[in-house]
Amino acid sequence: MNNPSPANLSQVLTFVESAATIAFALSGLLEAARKRLDAVGVCIVAGVAAFGGGTLRDILLDRRPFFWAEHAEWLWVLLALCVAAMIFMRASHFAPTERAMQWPDAAGLGLFTASGTQIALHGDAPAIVAVLMGVITAVFGGVLRDIVCNEIPSAFHDHRPYAICAFIGGWVLVGANALGMGDPRFVIPRQ
Amino acid sequence: MNNPSPANLSQVLTFVESAATIAFALSGLLEAARKRLDAVGVCIVAGVAAFGGGTLRDILLDRRPFFWAEHAEWLWVLLALCVAAMIFMRASHFAPTERAMQWPDAAGLGLFTASGTQIALHGDAPAIVAVLMGVITAVFGGVLRDIVCNEIPSAFHDHRPYAICAFIGGWVLVGANALGMGDPRFVIPRQ
Amino acid sequence: MNNPSPANLSQVLTFVESAATIAFALSGLLEAARKRLDAVGVCIVAGVAAFGGGTLRDILLDRRPFFWAEHAEWLWVLLALCVAAMIFMRASHFAPTERAMQWPDAAGLGLFTASGTQIALHGDAPAIVAVLMGVITAVFGGVLRDIVCNEIPSAFHDHRPYAICAFIGGWVLVGANALGMGDPRFVIPRQ
Repeated sequence: MNNPSPANLSQVLTFVESAATIAFALSGLLEAARKRLDAVGVCIVAGVAAFGGGTLRDILLDRRPFFWAEHAEWLWVLLALCVAAMIFMRASHFAPTERAMQWPDAAGLGLFTASGTQIALHGDAPAIVAVLMGVITAVFGGVLRDIVCNEIPSAFHDHRPYAICAFIGGWVLVGANALGMGDPRFVIPRQ
Repeated sequence: MNNPSPANLSQVLTFVESAATIAFALSGLLEAARKRLDAVGVCIVAGVAAFGGGTLRDILLDRRPFFWAEHAEWLWVLLALCVAAMIFMRASHFAPTERAMQWPDAAGLGLFTASGTQIALHGDAPAIVAVLMGVITAVFGGVLRDIVCNEIPSAFHDHRPYAICAFIGGWVLVGANALGMGDPRFVIPRQ
Repeated sequence: MNNPSPANLSQVLTFVESAATIAFALSGLLEAARKRLDAVGVCIVAGVAAFGGGTLRDILLDRRPFFWAEHAEWLWVLLALCVAAMIFMRASHFAPTERAMQWPDAAGLGLFTASGTQIALHGDAPAIVAVLMGVITAVFGGVLRDIVCNEIPSAFHDHRPYAICAFIGGWVLVGANALGMGDPRFVIPRQ
């Protein structure tokens, strides 16, 4: 089997993480717009959606510094994204539907599971705990976003199997690691 | 006075903790069913109800690993419980009432206070902080469960004195410890 | 320029922090009364409002012990405040309006930003992270209070620029520190 080199894999994961972070930030922006929040609400909800899952995972695993404290430029990216979105939405009278939120939500969900599981495995957590950390990373950005916006988290009642996919995907990753494919030592990026 | 031996006391507490964890998991299952959550929601709400209070206490006291990370078999127990409950509820068209939730809730509340207070005393916290940790362990499983389900926590407005009982019970424990009854060194189990 | 001596500055900040803590506790009391919570709810909501922002900041910065664990007398102050408020409200049939909550809320918001930013700067956080910690200290007491009471946080949709003021104020403080005004070493008090 022709494994990608660790450095490449790490770069791929960094790209995937960045895409997932932006996807979740967008889902937060859309929910904030639907709830007609003001500028403060838009920024905090987008931030909670983007960084909430990874931050909760790091609190549970007692890892510091957080992704957004180590790579503080991401906070600027998020702020720029929020300002741009607010200008655009005001200009275009854009009214996002609940349906519009599903795509960024689903994309982010899948993308975060792998990194969350890897990080927990790297810290020698038991397999089930590692998978749970992957699911928490993937799901709790959206869950915290919905809690903050005073809704039942959509992940809990939309009968879409995102979190179950994340759960299964986590186990696939655990299996792959047990078989010696993928070396957690080289997987440094994290949300 | 004929104190039980420390080993026995520790075993009793382990049993009590296990019973309380399952009682809270059931209260989460019932609330999830009432809110018609899907499989993902049922599992997460049951998990939050069962482990939320103790996890929050451990975050506040900066204790690691968590109960469910150290005893990962409990995560399997919870998962099995959720799957069994979903099959049973689908089969029997079981519609839990708000009243049905009170019993597991009350049982778990009382049972967790002692262990939470003991753990904080063991960490040399001031008496009031230790009692507060007992109350947090006991109450915040249910509080987080209700927040996640988008309700005002029932502990905050049901005019039932569970939390006040927990508060008083915590002080009784503090007093007992001050009088030399019960040795915190031997009380190892925790949620 | 005739700077106040560090000791004086520290005393001023302690006073400011105490005033802000009480202001936030009052905002929690008023919201609990509006929601007709019972004694347990009143105490927990007031506590979450008073200590929530600083506690969240300390969890994120991994600082221990918390303000309320180190200065446990504050928990007694809070408890006394809650009991007094409940007696007074029952006696006077006091029905707080949403408007009544704005003053303590706004006061606490402004007062906490400085200390939160200072503490993070003291821990060598990047400027944007320090400002964010100031905003979190200032805003999340109220945000957690509203989440616990099952409302969209008022800071997110009231179109009042409190949090933006906190954000700007945080940057002013960062600038002042960069210019050598104010020595973070002497700023010990914290929420």
